[in-house]
Amino acid sequence: MNTVLIDSLDDLGGQLTALYPEKYIFDVAGFPKVRAKELVDRLVEQMNSTGHKPAIQLGKAVSTLTETVGEDGRGVFTLAVGEGSIRARSVILAAGIGAFRPKSLPIPGIDALEGKYVHYSVKDTNRFKDARVLIVGGGDSAVDWANHLAGVAASVHVIHRRDEFRAHEGSVTQMRAGPTKIMTPFELKAIEGDASGLKFASVFNNLTKEETPLGVDHVLVNIGFLSSLGPIAEWGLELKKGKVVVDTRMGTTRAGIFAAGDVVSYDGKLALIACGFGDAAVAVCHAKMHVDPRAKLFPGHSSEKK
Amino acid sequence: MNTVLIDSLDDLGGQLTALYPEKYIFDVAGFPKVRAKELVDRLVEQMNSTGHKPAIQLGKAVSTLTETVGEDGRGVFTLAVGEGSIRARSVILAAGIGAFRPKSLPIPGIDALEGKYVHYSVKDTNRFKDARVLIVGGGDSAVDWANHLAGVAASVHVIHRRDEFRAHEGSVTQMRAGPTKIMTPFELKAIEGDASGLKFASVFNNLTKEETPLGVDHVLVNIGFLSSLGPIAEWGLELKKGKVVVDTRMGTTRAGIFAAGDVVSYDGKLALIACGFGDAAVAVCHAKMHVDPRAKLFPGHSSEKK
Repeated sequence: MNTVLIDSLDDLGGQLTALYPEKYIFDVAGFPKVRAKELVDRLVEQMNSTGHKPAIQLGKAVSTLTETVGEDGRGVFTLAVGEGSIRARSVILAAGIGAFRPKSLPIPGIDALEGKYVHYSVKDTNRFKDARVLIVGGGDSAVDWANHLAGVAASVHVIHRRDEFRAHEGSVTQMRAGPTKIMTPFELKAIEGDASGLKFASVFNNLTKEETPLGVDHVLVNIGFLSSLGPIAEWGLELKKGKVVVDTRMGTTRAGIFAAGDVVSYDGKLALIACGFGDAAVAVCHAKMHVDPRAKLFPGHSSEKK
Repeated sequence: MNTVLIDSLDDLGGQLTALYPEKYIFDVAGFPKVRAKELVDRLVEQMNSTGHKPAIQLGKAVSTLTETVGEDGRGVFTLAVGEGSIRARSVILAAGIGAFRPKSLPIPGIDALEGKYVHYSVKDTNRFKDARVLIVGGGDSAVDWANHLAGVAASVHVIHRRDEFRAHEGSVTQMRAGPTKIMTPFELKAIEGDASGLKFASVFNNLTKEETPLGVDHVLVNIGFLSSLGPIAEWGLELKKGKVVVDTRMGTTRAGIFAAGDVVSYDGKLALIACGFGDAAVAVCHAKMHVDPRAKLFPGHSSEKK
């Protein structure tokens, strides 16, 4: 099949790349322990080794989907992708938790610093080597990154708007015992910077309103995520609690549109990577049969491949 | 949970270990290419790294399953395993294609030589290093092993009862172009040996009945497999074409008995390793909920593990 892979993110790997590239995963079959980014690298290598590389369009969001009848009398989908469009006989949604974005802080000027000195995820810990880092947040991500960066950064401040952290107890204990400077109940008040770096940051105690300037080089905001199916919710597919309902063939309620992974809903579904891989194989084989009804469902055992 | 893993085979890994340990698999997610035995090794390492190692009983077949009511009023299964028995709150069948055995040849005395000079699978190619090998069969296994052992063994004969091989064309071409001595339509007539080695083997042309003695050290019989669910078929589970019917929770038609992998049947099921891994995660989580109804279905993300 000719395939096109479209992702609204700028990199392959979805949540693994965007949210926790440096974290270990322990429950993907065959990997006692694997870093999320290494798993993605291996999947990309596997994709490229098949001889059927998809065309890849990154940083582009799919908006509308329309269905027409092709010259051969069979259905054709047209998807609006960024400024262009793509025609396809079958569509597989592997949209995870939907288009997601980190929750941001309503601080004037913060958006212009994003990706330079204000970050919502850690793609490369070397970026913070010997730097003064301020982490905003009180959940697992904030606490885990505080512990991780404590051995990398010159200094780590964590501010959280509540006194209680909503993170694993052992991690909080580790953070409190380590060099991280913890300020609660504090919030970010102001931040200023230009191309050469952060010039000024200040935090405030949200009970006393007392304001404290901090000398920091980078701010890491880990206050959670917003996600949504976005335009996919308007495609006429049956949804349940924000997920796409599928049958055991991973078929949605529209013929020719399949789904796999965290985006799907069925009785007993687990949002685990291991299950997504199985869903994907089923979705692909049934999509193939939809495109070519003469195809056999079973793709054969790869161990018989020459 | 306390778990017991039972297999009628002597080694972990099922078909991968028993049938094609040396073959590469290309469609397990995250592995562009992995030898079956390496994948099994990694899975065993992963199992042992969790801190919840199962008790393992190899070389033991499960026969009957009975259900009684425990002292707490809840159901308990008792499985007859070899000479003993095991009590369990829940059972997961991951029985693959069932208890399977290679088809054997009705040659007098051949059974006594099995495992010494007569083989039904290749567990270690070094066993055949510099030996004179006779392969019986005309399918993919026979042809693949002829090609593989051509570079290892001193000599390779292949006999097949038909002139046409039922194997991948490229492999047959490779075999015909190589050093393998091919005799068709030939069958094995007689074989004799003792503890010190094979003394005599002869083959015959099944059209002319002409008999030819062959000097060989090992015979590899690759004429297919017989498999069956065996006693599991009597457990009162709904079956379909020799497979166990499951719902999307991998539950069989008997509460508390789950199934995963090639043994299951549902609409659209693919007998792929990748799908078996997903099935297994679903079965385990639902078995856990059966054992402990207070348990949450979702086991959590392993990347949050401490």
